[in-house]
Amino acid sequence: MPRSLEDAPTTVPVRLGERSYDIAVADGGWDALPAFLKPALERSWAGRGCLKALILTDDHVAKLPYPGLVARALGSLGIEATTSVVPHGEASKGLATAAGLYEELVATAADRHTLVVAVGGGVIGDLGGFVAATFARGLPLLMVPTTLLAQVDSSVGGKVGVNLPKVKNIVGSFHQPIAVWIDVASLNDLPDRELRCGLAEVVKYGVILDAAFFDSLEADAEAILGRRPESLRRIVARSCELKADVVSKDEREETGLRAVLNFGHTIGHAVEATAGYGGAFQHGEAVAVGMVAESRLAERLGWVGRDFTTRLTRLLDRFGLPTSIAGLDPGPLLESMARDKKNQGGRIRLVLPRRMGHVELTDAAETADLKNLLDDLCGPAPL
Amino acid sequence: MPRSLEDAPTTVPVRLGERSYDIAVADGGWDALPAFLKPALERSWAGRGCLKALILTDDHVAKLPYPGLVARALGSLGIEATTSVVPHGEASKGLATAAGLYEELVATAADRHTLVVAVGGGVIGDLGGFVAATFARGLPLLMVPTTLLAQVDSSVGGKVGVNLPKVKNIVGSFHQPIAVWIDVASLNDLPDRELRCGLAEVVKYGVILDAAFFDSLEADAEAILGRRPESLRRIVARSCELKADVVSKDEREETGLRAVLNFGHTIGHAVEATAGYGGAFQHGEAVAVGMVAESRLAERLGWVGRDFTTRLTRLLDRFGLPTSIAGLDPGPLLESMARDKKNQGGRIRLVLPRRMGHVELTDAAETADLKNLLDDLCGPAPL
Repeated sequence: MPRSLEDAPTTVPVRLGERSYDIAVADGGWDALPAFLKPALERSWAGRGCLKALILTDDHVAKLPYPGLVARALGSLGIEATTSVVPHGEASKGLATAAGLYEELVATAADRHTLVVAVGGGVIGDLGGFVAATFARGLPLLMVPTTLLAQVDSSVGGKVGVNLPKVKNIVGSFHQPIAVWIDVASLNDLPDRELRCGLAEVVKYGVILDAAFFDSLEADAEAILGRRPESLRRIVARSCELKADVVSKDEREETGLRAVLNFGHTIGHAVEATAGYGGAFQHGEAVAVGMVAESRLAERLGWVGRDFTTRLTRLLDRFGLPTSIAGLDPGPLLESMARDKKNQGGRIRLVLPRRMGHVELTDAAETADLKNLLDDLCGPAPL
Repeated sequence: MPRSLEDAPTTVPVRLGERSYDIAVADGGWDALPAFLKPALERSWAGRGCLKALILTDDHVAKLPYPGLVARALGSLGIEATTSVVPHGEASKGLATAAGLYEELVATAADRHTLVVAVGGGVIGDLGGFVAATFARGLPLLMVPTTLLAQVDSSVGGKVGVNLPKVKNIVGSFHQPIAVWIDVASLNDLPDRELRCGLAEVVKYGVILDAAFFDSLEADAEAILGRRPESLRRIVARSCELKADVVSKDEREETGLRAVLNFGHTIGHAVEATAGYGGAFQHGEAVAVGMVAESRLAERLGWVGRDFTTRLTRLLDRFGLPTSIAGLDPGPLLESMARDKKNQGGRIRLVLPRRMGHVELTDAAETADLKNLLDDLCGPAPL
């Protein structure tokens, strides 16, 4: 069936030398997947001999059409796919589930050319990516993220991994996919709260890298919340582009450049850890309150004016995201921040805004200032 | 204490772009380890901030002085080491042991700069390397191989991994160490049979890449078996050099060039798998009989003369290695070869010699020829 030009997926290149790949952002249009995937397979050493695939998904996504659409596209390329379904949720992202998937790969006589396809949210992408990274020292990987958070965040950058019982994401590696296929129509199946969580990361990209993008989110907020396909495609493609640009300059998180992506996450992670994972704050919600709190800190350092935080808070509010940590206990928050991976020489480091579209990694905040800030923010909200 | 020039370790560079590293081949001389390790740490992003180390070893090697010598050298560089001891043997090379080591790293508050040091044979190197590759998406790794097989084979090339219950080495990745420290004095503690197994791989390097090296092994056989330090240093350093050269041209085993290292291994792996791992044939012994059998096949294809196999057999004999598969069942051997990773398009591929110092990857042997060969070799030896 011929398709009009408007229906063709938007393509975002991720430039990583010999590990470069493309992200397709489509609205439906699954007929285009084989033509998108074929050159990606041919570019990759492992993809070239691909005859088999393992599609990994969870029991929620398994009820949706996406795993079947992937299998059909693979079939048209002569690739025979088997599908493996794991329970949804964070508990599946561990070594035990990975071990089970290794055994399935052995049982299907997988070789170094077997394609792993991760169809689902962040858990499926991270878990499937880790299995692909470590089976036979690396299988080709196709990411098909179906949540907004996975589309704009975890599907770009090659970070894959699983949790230990007490530490999230601590076992893993960097493993770039050969391609990413995003269908924004999958966002129609997403609960409101999950859509909002993805929007927190989208807002973050505007703040850290692109003032015009932030403007456009304010202007387009209604259409985004109304899940208008053109708006969703635009924000997903631009978010991927912005993240891809950062990742291409610091693939393995070694130069400090990739740290800008951590805006909102230093306090955000502390909130998430303190309030308990999967508890009061989901990841995107913790990032939202983290961005507001870190913006307040930037105010105290004289980096931005009060109007900056007001504007940020207003957009997050409009997206239905929390913006306050009033009522939390400041002590454990500070302790958690003191363990942040970015810290150096015993000083807490954060990524703070200088102006819209620009942030900097800094250790300028004294621990006493941080404590004061958290005391103020955790206290009862002013009337 | 000043050391004479003869005592300085031989250095073998492994050229892998930004992942390049040096192998030091020493005879004792542990006082030189800090000066060797310091620049290696400073060259590596993760090594630069190193303050802590986890030394991994097994319960056999833990009784020898090497883990303590490593800890002392690290201490002199201001690096605090804890030591983790796992049971010796292949059973430790699995996901369960890896999971325990991850927990130890968490318990010692390891970060991305924590050095992992693998002190032992192939099991320890592969396991420690895998943990280093996957904890926090990659920790710096120092290899201190103490068996001949680990020194000339698994410590060069970056292949790390663990076994699944039914498949060896199937979970893993490529993770290059920041440095390798080899003390040939550790070979004095090695049982004869383990020394011989390492010599099979040493002989292989001569056959596949360096005719003069093969000559020198014939000339120097007595001194090698007598574990003369100069001889051991020479064969270890040259073996590392030869393997490093191959690995630097095909780091991730993608171009086929690295396949030359597989001489003796196609039939060798089949013998190992058929006779049962850890059974009648240890890995080096299986490689020895594999080399002889593959040399016989090269004879039948007219690639080498009968004298070639005779010469190879004589040297292996002299090193106390087996050279015959008489008495094995040829059927399962052929089935096992049919599953070899090198095969393409349903044809069995082997690496066969053309002349001393040169081998080629080929699918020239018909399955019927292979069957005939195995029938002949597995039959009773002629009087």
